[in-house]
Amino acid sequence: MKTGVVHEHVIEVPAASDPVLVCGLPGSGYVGKLAADHLVSSFKLRKVAEYTSSTFPPQVSVKEDGTVDPPRGELFFAPTKGGRSLFVFTADAQPTTSEGEYELSDAVVSFVRKCGVKKVYTLAAYITGSFSNSPKVYGAGTSKEMNKSLSEKGVTMMKDGGISGMNGLLIGVAALRGLEGACLLGETSGYVVDAGASKAVLEMLSKVVEMPIDTSMLKEKAEETQKVISQLQAMAEQSRETTPQPTREQRPGYIG
Amino acid sequence: MKTGVVHEHVIEVPAASDPVLVCGLPGSGYVGKLAADHLVSSFKLRKVAEYTSSTFPPQVSVKEDGTVDPPRGELFFAPTKGGRSLFVFTADAQPTTSEGEYELSDAVVSFVRKCGVKKVYTLAAYITGSFSNSPKVYGAGTSKEMNKSLSEKGVTMMKDGGISGMNGLLIGVAALRGLEGACLLGETSGYVVDAGASKAVLEMLSKVVEMPIDTSMLKEKAEETQKVISQLQAMAEQSRETTPQPTREQRPGYIG
Amino acid sequence: MKTGVVHEHVIEVPAASDPVLVCGLPGSGYVGKLAADHLVSSFKLRKVAEYTSSTFPPQVSVKEDGTVDPPRGELFFAPTKGGRSLFVFTADAQPTTSEGEYELSDAVVSFVRKCGVKKVYTLAAYITGSFSNSPKVYGAGTSKEMNKSLSEKGVTMMKDGGISGMNGLLIGVAALRGLEGACLLGETSGYVVDAGASKAVLEMLSKVVEMPIDTSMLKEKAEETQKVISQLQAMAEQSRETTPQPTREQRPGYIG
Amino acid sequence: MKTGVVHEHVIEVPAASDPVLVCGLPGSGYVGKLAADHLVSSFKLRKVAEYTSSTFPPQVSVKEDGTVDPPRGELFFAPTKGGRSLFVFTADAQPTTSEGEYELSDAVVSFVRKCGVKKVYTLAAYITGSFSNSPKVYGAGTSKEMNKSLSEKGVTMMKDGGISGMNGLLIGVAALRGLEGACLLGETSGYVVDAGASKAVLEMLSKVVEMPIDTSMLKEKAEETQKVISQLQAMAEQSRETTPQPTREQRPGYIG
Repeated sequence: MKTGVVHEHVIEVPAASDPVLVCGLPGSGYVGKLAADHLVSSFKLRKVAEYTSSTFPPQVSVKEDGTVDPPRGELFFAPTKGGRSLFVFTADAQPTTSEGEYELSDAVVSFVRKCGVKKVYTLAAYITGSFSNSPKVYGAGTSKEMNKSLSEKGVTMMKDGGISGMNGLLIGVAALRGLEGACLLGETSGYVVDAGASKAVLEMLSKVVEMPIDTSMLKEKAEETQKVISQLQAMAEQSRETTPQPTREQRPGYIG
Repeated sequence: MKTGVVHEHVIEVPAASDPVLVCGLPGSGYVGKLAADHLVSSFKLRKVAEYTSSTFPPQVSVKEDGTVDPPRGELFFAPTKGGRSLFVFTADAQPTTSEGEYELSDAVVSFVRKCGVKKVYTLAAYITGSFSNSPKVYGAGTSKEMNKSLSEKGVTMMKDGGISGMNGLLIGVAALRGLEGACLLGETSGYVVDAGASKAVLEMLSKVVEMPIDTSMLKEKAEETQKVISQLQAMAEQSRETTPQPTREQRPGYIG
Repeated sequence: MKTGVVHEHVIEVPAASDPVLVCGLPGSGYVGKLAADHLVSSFKLRKVAEYTSSTFPPQVSVKEDGTVDPPRGELFFAPTKGGRSLFVFTADAQPTTSEGEYELSDAVVSFVRKCGVKKVYTLAAYITGSFSNSPKVYGAGTSKEMNKSLSEKGVTMMKDGGISGMNGLLIGVAALRGLEGACLLGETSGYVVDAGASKAVLEMLSKVVEMPIDTSMLKEKAEETQKVISQLQAMAEQSRETTPQPTREQRPGYIG
Repeated sequence: MKTGVVHEHVIEVPAASDPVLVCGLPGSGYVGKLAADHLVSSFKLRKVAEYTSSTFPPQVSVKEDGTVDPPRGELFFAPTKGGRSLFVFTADAQPTTSEGEYELSDAVVSFVRKCGVKKVYTLAAYITGSFSNSPKVYGAGTSKEMNKSLSEKGVTMMKDGGISGMNGLLIGVAALRGLEGACLLGETSGYVVDAGASKAVLEMLSKVVEMPIDTSMLKEKAEETQKVISQLQAMAEQSRETTPQPTREQRPGYIG
C-alpha cells in the first residue's frame, strides 16, 4: 500500500507447464466468482500470491469461519492431470476506482506472464433478463484467431456491446501486455446467483482449453438455482394474469 | 501532504508495557467516537501523534473553544494502573476515499506495532433500528482464537455481514500487518447519538482487555440518551395509533 | 500505467513540416469523433503513438472486427499534399477523472510540440436543442490573434460559456504549454449522432488551416443524419398537435 | 502537473513588509471572489504566482476578452500606502477533489509563509436564506487571540458549524503550518451574487487588518444587488398572497 494502490504478496513463483490463467470476479449473478471458486476447490489449487489494494472497498466481512478480513485478490495454481498448469485468479470484491482495476489487472497479468502464461480467460455473466433452462455461452476474444477458435468450440460470438469491470479489463490488459485473452459469458437472468450459468461456462471452458473439468459439485448448486428460478417463474406467472408484462424488446439486454 | 495522502506528526514514541490499541471513529450513533473520547479523558491520556490527510473532508469546524481546525486524527497514550499501556486512536472525521482510509489505518497500525502493540480493538455501532434498554455487544475478530476469547467474555459473535469504514478497516489492516484485531459493536437504534451503547461497549472492552474502565462520566450522558429515546418512543407510540408500523422484518438491520 | 495515470507508447517520432494538431474525442453528437475519424481515413494517416490510461473506463468493447480492446487514445500523422503535416488525435472514450483528462492532454500536447506543432484545433458540438439544415460553426481561441483569424474565416465567436472535457481542455493545456489553440463547435441538436455538424466543422477547419479536406465520404452519413432528423421532426410535428411545446427560451443552450 | 496534482509557476518572490494574505474563492453568492477581485483591482496588485491543477474542473471558459483559458489560481501582491504588504489569492474555480483542495491550500500558504506572512484571512458567505439591508459579518479564527481581536472589531463570532471548501481549508492549513488564520463571512441570502455582502466583508477586513480599503467601486455593484433583491422580494410578496411560506425555522441556515 506504500507505492501505488496495489500491493502484491508473492508466496511462490511456481514452475508451470503450458499454463493458462482463468479469472472470475464477483459480478452479475456471481457467475464468474462461483466458477472460479469451483476451479480452486475441484483442482485443489494452492495460493501463490495475494493482492491487497487501497482501492478495494474499505471494510471487513465476516467469513464462513466467523473471522473478519479486508477484501483481497488471490492467485491460485496447480499442475493438472492433463499436463497443463492452471492459474486461477479471484477476489472478494472489485476495486472501487478505474485506477484500482487497471493496476490490479496489470499486477496479475504481469505475474502469470513471467510464469509462461500466453492466454487469459475470464468468466462472466451475459444478462438477458429472462430465465433459460440451457444457458448459452457467449464470448469475445482479443484476436481474430482467438475468436475463430472460440467459435469452433460452440461459443456464440458477441457482435457488439462491451464487458465492464475486471472480467473485461483483465483480457484487455492481457492484450496490452502481448498475451491473448477471451471472455466467456454465461447466459443468465441477472436476478439470481446463477450456478447453472457458472456450470455452462465451465463446460465451455473445458472444451476451449482442452482440460477436463469436473462440474459435478456445481450440479447440486445449479439445481438449487433452478428451483429458485421455478419459484420466481411461478410467481411471475401468477402476476402476469393481472399485470401487463414487458415484451422481449423492452427487457434489459445488458452484459456485465 | 507532500508524499501520499496521510501526514504523520510524531510527538513522542512512548515506552509502552504490554500495550493495546483501542480505536473509535465517528460513525452511526457516535458510539465509537464517544467511547474513545471517554477513554482519553478518564485515563488522562497524552497525545503522541497527529495525522492530517488530504482525504479528510476539505473544511474547518468550530470547536468547543470557538476556534476552527481542519479534521485530524489523534493518537493518545498512557500507562494504566493495572500495568498495561493504553493507546487510543480517534479522529474528527473519516477520510473521504478508500485510499485515505487504508493509508490512515496503515499509518496508525504501523506506529503502535513498533511500540509493541499486538492487539487492536475498534468500537462501533450495531444498528438494529429499534431501541434497547440493555444494549447487547456484538463482535468479530480477525482470528478464531480472538473470537473464542470474545465469546467467553459474553460478546455476541457476528455470523455474517460486514463492518464498513475505519472501525472495520483498522482491524483488517492490523491483521494484514500480523497483529490480531477485534471490533466490539454496541447495539443501537441508529437514530440518536447513543451514549448508552458507548457505555455498554466500554464495559465489555474492560472485560476483554482486563483493564478497569470507569464509565461513571458516561452514565450521565447515557441517561440523557435514555430520555431522548423515551421521548421518541412516546412520539412513536402516539403516531402508531394512526399510522401503520413496519414489522420487525421490515426494519433496517445494518451494521456500520 | 506504472508511473502516473497515462502511458504513452511511441511508435514513431515523425519529421513534420509546419504541422497542426486536430483533435476530436467522443462527446455530444459524436461531432468531433466522426470528424477526426474522417480525417484519419481520408488523409490515410498512420498511427504514431498510442495512449492507455488507468483513468479510461475499466472495460473492453467489441470492435467492428469482432475482437475486444480496452479504451485507448491514438495519435495519427501524415504529410498532406499542400505541404503541411497533419496530426490527428482521437480516443475511444474520455478519461473518467479530471486528473486523467489533464495528464492525457498534457502527454499529447507535449508530443506534438516536440514535432513542431504551434497550433492545436479541437472539434466539438455546440448544442442548441433544435435541428438546423445548415449548421453554424461556433468557435473560441486561446488568444485574440487566433480569435481574429477565426472570425475572418466566418466562425461565429462564442461570447460566454465554456467547453467541457478533453475537447476544451486540450486547447487550454496547449495554451499553458505556450501553443495557440482553438475549438470549432458544430451546431447540433444534441439528440442524434450528427454527421452534418461534423461536415460543417471540417469545412470550416479546411478554411482555417488552409488545407483542402475532402468531405464527400461524410456527405452520405450527413444525408442519413438528415433523414433521421426529418423523421424526428415529423414525430415532433405530430405530438405538437397534442402536447404543449417549450418555447425557444426554455430549450437547452448548452455547449459540450 | 507532473508531480502531485498542483503546479506552481512562480513569477516573482516579492520583498514584503509585514504582509498579510487575503483569499476569496468562488462560493455561495460569489461573496469572497467578488471581494478578492475588488482588492486586486483597487490596490493595483501584480501577479506573483500562478497555480494550475489537474483537480480543477477539466474545461475552458470564455473570458471577458473572448479568449478561453483553463481554470487557474492566481496570487497577487503589492505594498500598500500604509506600509503593510498585501497578498491576495483567488481562483477561477475550486478543485474537484479533497486532495486538490489540500495541495492547493498548502502551495499558497507555503509560498506566502516564505515571504513573511503570519496571518491568513479568507472571505466567504454566511448563508441565512433571507435578505438583509445591512449584512452582518460573522467570523471564526484559528486561535483564541485571533478570535478575541476579531470580536473587538465587531465581528459576530461563530459558535458552531463549519466552513467548507478552500475558504475554510486555507486557514486550517495555515494553522497546520504555524500561521494564524481567520475567516470573515458576509451575511447573504444565498440566492444572488451578493456584492453588498462582499462590501460588508471588506469593510470589516479593513478594520481587522488596519488597512484602508476603498470600496466605492463595489458600491455600484452592491446597489445593483439591492435592486435584484428588491425585485425578488416584490415577487415573493406577490406569491406570498397565494402560496404558504416557510417559517424562519424552515429556512436554510447553511454556512459555505
